Amino acid sequence: MLLYERVAAALRAQIAHGTLRAGERLPSIRRLAEGHGVSVATAVQTYLQLEREGLVVARPRSGYFVRASTPQLPASPPARRRVPGEVNNPALLDATEIRARGDLLPLHSATPALELLPQGALMASVSRCLRRAPAVVLEYAPAQGHLALRRLIAQRYAQVGAPVSPEEIVITAGAMEAINLALRTITSPGDVVLVETPTYHGILQAVAALHLKVLEVPNLPGQGIDVARLDHLLQQNSVRAAVLVPNFNNPLGSLTSDADKRALVDSCARHGVVIIEDDIYGELAWSGQRPSLLRRWDTRGMVISCGSFSKMLAPGMRLGWLACNQWTDALVRAKFFSTVGGTSLTQLAMSDYLQRHDLERHLRRLRRTLADNGQRMFEAIARYWPSDTRASEPQGGLSLWVQLPARGDSRVLSKAALSKGIRTSPGVLFSSRGEYADYVRLSCGLVWNERLDRAMKELGKLAAKLDGSKVITP
Amino acid sequence: MLLYERVAAALRAQIAHGTLRAGERLPSIRRLAEGHGVSVATAVQTYLQLEREGLVVARPRSGYFVRASTPQLPASPPARRRVPGEVNNPALLDATEIRARGDLLPLHSATPALELLPQGALMASVSRCLRRAPAVVLEYAPAQGHLALRRLIAQRYAQVGAPVSPEEIVITAGAMEAINLALRTITSPGDVVLVETPTYHGILQAVAALHLKVLEVPNLPGQGIDVARLDHLLQQNSVRAAVLVPNFNNPLGSLTSDADKRALVDSCARHGVVIIEDDIYGELAWSGQRPSLLRRWDTRGMVISCGSFSKMLAPGMRLGWLACNQWTDALVRAKFFSTVGGTSLTQLAMSDYLQRHDLERHLRRLRRTLADNGQRMFEAIARYWPSDTRASEPQGGLSLWVQLPARGDSRVLSKAALSKGIRTSPGVLFSSRGEYADYVRLSCGLVWNERLDRAMKELGKLAAKLDGSKVITP
Repeated sequence: MLLYERVAAALRAQIAHGTLRAGERLPSIRRLAEGHGVSVATAVQTYLQLEREGLVVARPRSGYFVRASTPQLPASPPARRRVPGEVNNPALLDATEIRARGDLLPLHSATPALELLPQGALMASVSRCLRRAPAVVLEYAPAQGHLALRRLIAQRYAQVGAPVSPEEIVITAGAMEAINLALRTITSPGDVVLVETPTYHGILQAVAALHLKVLEVPNLPGQGIDVARLDHLLQQNSVRAAVLVPNFNNPLGSLTSDADKRALVDSCARHGVVIIEDDIYGELAWSGQRPSLLRRWDTRGMVISCGSFSKMLAPGMRLGWLACNQWTDALVRAKFFSTVGGTSLTQLAMSDYLQRHDLERHLRRLRRTLADNGQRMFEAIARYWPSDTRASEPQGGLSLWVQLPARGDSRVLSKAALSKGIRTSPGVLFSSRGEYADYVRLSCGLVWNERLDRAMKELGKLAAKLDGSKVITP
Repeated sequence: MLLYERVAAALRAQIAHGTLRAGERLPSIRRLAEGHGVSVATAVQTYLQLEREGLVVARPRSGYFVRASTPQLPASPPARRRVPGEVNNPALLDATEIRARGDLLPLHSATPALELLPQGALMASVSRCLRRAPAVVLEYAPAQGHLALRRLIAQRYAQVGAPVSPEEIVITAGAMEAINLALRTITSPGDVVLVETPTYHGILQAVAALHLKVLEVPNLPGQGIDVARLDHLLQQNSVRAAVLVPNFNNPLGSLTSDADKRALVDSCARHGVVIIEDDIYGELAWSGQRPSLLRRWDTRGMVISCGSFSKMLAPGMRLGWLACNQWTDALVRAKFFSTVGGTSLTQLAMSDYLQRHDLERHLRRLRRTLADNGQRMFEAIARYWPSDTRASEPQGGLSLWVQLPARGDSRVLSKAALSKGIRTSPGVLFSSRGEYADYVRLSCGLVWNERLDRAMKELGKLAAKLDGSKVITP
């Protein structure tokens, strides 16, 4: 047995026996080396091995920690809607507030904390634009958006192997407007749209507001979109468009593999289904590896990709975009007919920021922080919540999807949590028919601190009281 | 005969005989007094009398001028669509660009020139917001919009006798989004919506995009909405909503009287028709007298008013609003489902501007300039265009509606004008079925100068060549 294997075996045993518990800090590399009388190189190798095994996790500037694990989410979700139908979920009507409010802890929102975003640099870019071309504060932006910003977005697409011309980009008020414009352009009232289940409530709200019907394809924890099922559904039904989130489904955080992406693009193309790809979390892979776009596998121009700066740079600037293909003219029209155009100041300020700063560097830091936060949230659930709580293992994005122990109703949990100053998103918001009542979505975008730790503890207590079907009256 | 009447008669004769021509400057008051051997007070009284008669016009800091007159537009427009139908006008698909571009003269756009807007003060407000609360550049705005801005808008409604609570205001991306959200909230695809004819193409584009049918009520030059006809149409048809522009119809510039406003609100209420009031030009009365809102005559909460800062302060900030009544929750939802929310920075900067500056003072100056521009445009048409050109006499707003001599096609005119560096809006854009081919809309929002004078002369020449059905090949 190699030296590092011996040390690893010793640590494995301590973890197995509970000597070292989930979330606890492991000895530093220097101390581990001293303690076992091995070299620093061997200590490093030990931790790398345990990390590969998923037993420990490294945190930047903090060292190694015992990785927490909760039971995994069930691999196959409950039976879902098998025929197209209206969105029928009254809870969707009440979800109209996304931003942080006063002193409530915003665990409900899949948005990064402001501390994680380059506030100073963006402010400087706004100021610079005002100084350089003061009229920017007054003038209409072109309906399609300023070319400077469209060029920078096109450059980023080229870097991820899905090239697009700046002439095929349309700037929007965030990804939500992008999805709306795409749906308005592609569909007519009464058409059937394929969506994932679970999926982001904004997609369901948009589909419902446009008088469209939905058909649901499961997104499976740790696996992504169920492509076989998708193909089956398209064979059985006449579907006009599909709104898909292959890169880090919201709420699950799952990633659809390249092979599955390719298969689903083929399947949609075969059935004449236009794909509206919501890639809002695509830049937030916790591994650091930017996943591919559906657009990359699209040989027939049937994919409209939607992106946004909201989740990586500045939610409040309301800047998203469409990569359009053959529908560019129609989408520019839809934008004009809807709001005439966007805001010049924010578009040009974002262009200035992107030209002056290394976005990739900011993203590397942000991704690491999110991965670390996710792990800490996971650990907190393992430590504080009932032992049969199950949680998703996100591969990216900003949220954790948690299943409460038997008969727990997350609406009751959310209400009770609110009275303790904590906002959460009950699972029913992520279904077209009010399913997932026993799930709750938590943000991984907050900076970990004492207050968040206490909140997770509090939520665990509330979840424990739910367990056994006791109803909490807040 | 009184002294001033004698002097007035003399001037009247000179105008009648062409001694003094349309647009020419009249003697100064001092010189008129000396010339006729009367007192300064009598000279003043003379001009006041001639102004009352519509023969002369005063221009701030320039003196009195002979008022131009062209033949009036026909009082009763050609027969319009009498039954509901789809919007069917391919020209509407091409109108997707509103802003000034390069060195083209933007006579096409009903937007004030940037020189007429308080650029410095608005810039300072943006900078102040950034300094005071830097996070404003990052954070989501509430879906309903920031309360600070909603309060200031509500204060303005109170001043014009149409009070509304800040809780009933929803901030939008300009009036265009406001109208869209109201239509989406009130109507379902296939519903019939009453619109004016002529009317702003954005309204027709929105109605078409939402799969609605239109029914048209004439807006009459110098008179406004034909209320008798409106009542008749509502008796004959099942109409869900009406999108009306009683304050300075775009393109006509006509004002609907208070009596007619009251009558049309009553008629709509009787027939259960929700009114979506587009008051985007309400603050731009050339007389200086702010006209009433339909909302003021509404006793049953059936009017949704849409307003905007685009035409009076800053087109590019994309700030409009809805005053909602019973539909507030539904409209906040529609806003959230469509774009999540607006931009915090622009909302808070506008609030700062409104708190620090006297909006009324800015508007007084802007209205005077627009009235003066309108008169100069009118004079230029009288001087340079074929003598049987007819033009609207706007009472407010930003545009002049001009009918070309017999068989003139404004699409040909607009194309020829573009090759001379002048943008104009052909009349077909203001009809649901491509009527008004012989009309053109011109902006009154540009600052009068040599270049604009030359452009009007050029347009006159082009219009003269059209006259007699000669087709211009540009």
